[in-house]
Amino acid sequence: MTPRVEHASGCVGILAGGGPLPGQVAAAVAAQGRPVFMIAFQDFAEPSVVAPWPHAWVRLAAAGQILSELRAHRCGDIVLIGPVRRPSFRDLRPDAEGARILARLGRALFAGDDGLLGALVRVLGEEGFTVRGAHEFLSRSLGKVGALGRYTPDEGAQSDIARGLEVVRALGRLDIGQGCVVQNGVVLAVEAMEGTDAMLERAAGCRQPGTGGVLVKLCKPEQERRADMPTIGPKTIEGAARAKLSGIAFEAGGTLLIDPQACVAAADAAGLFLWGLAES
Amino acid sequence: MTPRVEHASGCVGILAGGGPLPGQVAAAVAAQGRPVFMIAFQDFAEPSVVAPWPHAWVRLAAAGQILSELRAHRCGDIVLIGPVRRPSFRDLRPDAEGARILARLGRALFAGDDGLLGALVRVLGEEGFTVRGAHEFLSRSLGKVGALGRYTPDEGAQSDIARGLEVVRALGRLDIGQGCVVQNGVVLAVEAMEGTDAMLERAAGCRQPGTGGVLVKLCKPEQERRADMPTIGPKTIEGAARAKLSGIAFEAGGTLLIDPQACVAAADAAGLFLWGLAES
Repeated sequence: MTPRVEHASGCVGILAGGGPLPGQVAAAVAAQGRPVFMIAFQDFAEPSVVAPWPHAWVRLAAAGQILSELRAHRCGDIVLIGPVRRPSFRDLRPDAEGARILARLGRALFAGDDGLLGALVRVLGEEGFTVRGAHEFLSRSLGKVGALGRYTPDEGAQSDIARGLEVVRALGRLDIGQGCVVQNGVVLAVEAMEGTDAMLERAAGCRQPGTGGVLVKLCKPEQERRADMPTIGPKTIEGAARAKLSGIAFEAGGTLLIDPQACVAAADAAGLFLWGLAES
Repeated sequence: MTPRVEHASGCVGILAGGGPLPGQVAAAVAAQGRPVFMIAFQDFAEPSVVAPWPHAWVRLAAAGQILSELRAHRCGDIVLIGPVRRPSFRDLRPDAEGARILARLGRALFAGDDGLLGALVRVLGEEGFTVRGAHEFLSRSLGKVGALGRYTPDEGAQSDIARGLEVVRALGRLDIGQGCVVQNGVVLAVEAMEGTDAMLERAAGCRQPGTGGVLVKLCKPEQERRADMPTIGPKTIEGAARAKLSGIAFEAGGTLLIDPQACVAAADAAGLFLWGLAES
């Protein structure tokens, strides 16, 4: 997890999905004095995030165009960052290169997320690119062990965190989601394909008697971190506050904080802890 | 799981939550020539289900009233059937006996569902009642091994069922929910406190490319079957059809079918299989 690219050079290609993280990676790369080129995925990347940087808008499945843009801009290192939904086959419309890559992905298209993302990173490697993790550039957004803000988990929350860790690790071994919500030992909600925001909304609706509750979020053990780091942002904190949780526990060094300052401010304002767990 | 009460006698007390099952248990008991008395839980039991039988409306936490009604009607055997939501402490308002029982339940109130239901069955046993499982009376509603209707799982569905079994067993070991939805090897949704209907609705919204998908529903290994049998009803089948699944797999002998004929008819009409798995 140590940043390995401080002394590298050449253009970094950013394959940009939704949200603000692609812009943050671009800014971090630029701060290292390296040029950036963004592949902005249609229907996913946000125009305001992409606009400040050299970029091209490309359909997700137009692999031929993606590879030729990356080669034209001499991108050796590439970063995949920001959510994209796995499209339906009907909407995919791959170009010729895309169809060739889909065939190479083969059965992985039908495997869990990990299988697919791992296969994608492998294919890009075979095409001569080095796939970097966003965390290699955003080391300041990785959180740290212990409390990030003003609040810390009490004994009850620590016990819920321990139960959540046990649950999320068991889920991870089965290649299911990255998170769960636990309140006083009861698992309120477990994350699969719906994502953390939807899970938090559901947890708000099935709280049990009493206060408290924690969101526990981890990398899946087999997860290809270069393609899908768990993220926490102000929206996660809003969702946790609406579900009346007492805080969020995450893997320090294995979780990207979208706008760390805003996260800490929002958590402090809501009375929530942000608790970084040592990597296990 | 063998019916054990064929030759018993005396009044059967039915502690009735929501849905039609309390009425079905009452009818099955009456068909054995035994009298029935229903404790209808306010805010949960359905008036039209309760009305045909001798009954009293009681608040969930009015344990003193519940016990004295059961004793007044000489109920030796009792059955807990039909869903009730765990109330908040604010809404609970126990009577004196209720407060005493809450104290005896103690920490189990904060444990997983299994802990709470197991403790409740234990307390009722200590009070001199024999808690029977609804399945001991509703043996015709227990399903059987293999296809209940016209459709059977194909090879892809069998493979999703195997994956789902692995997932639900792992969840059960952690005292989480009873079900999950798997499509082409991807776990779309996992059930915790929200229940099967909400999980199916969510699964409909995060389907992956391709067809198929199965709902797998099992008893949790530690589950107190006398207090919380998994059930499948026409509503489950509607939800599975809306999520475009190819069928439902359940534990034969360990799952109550609400109106088995209507379930089979609905599944046949929707092109879904209903597949009973041998107990493991």
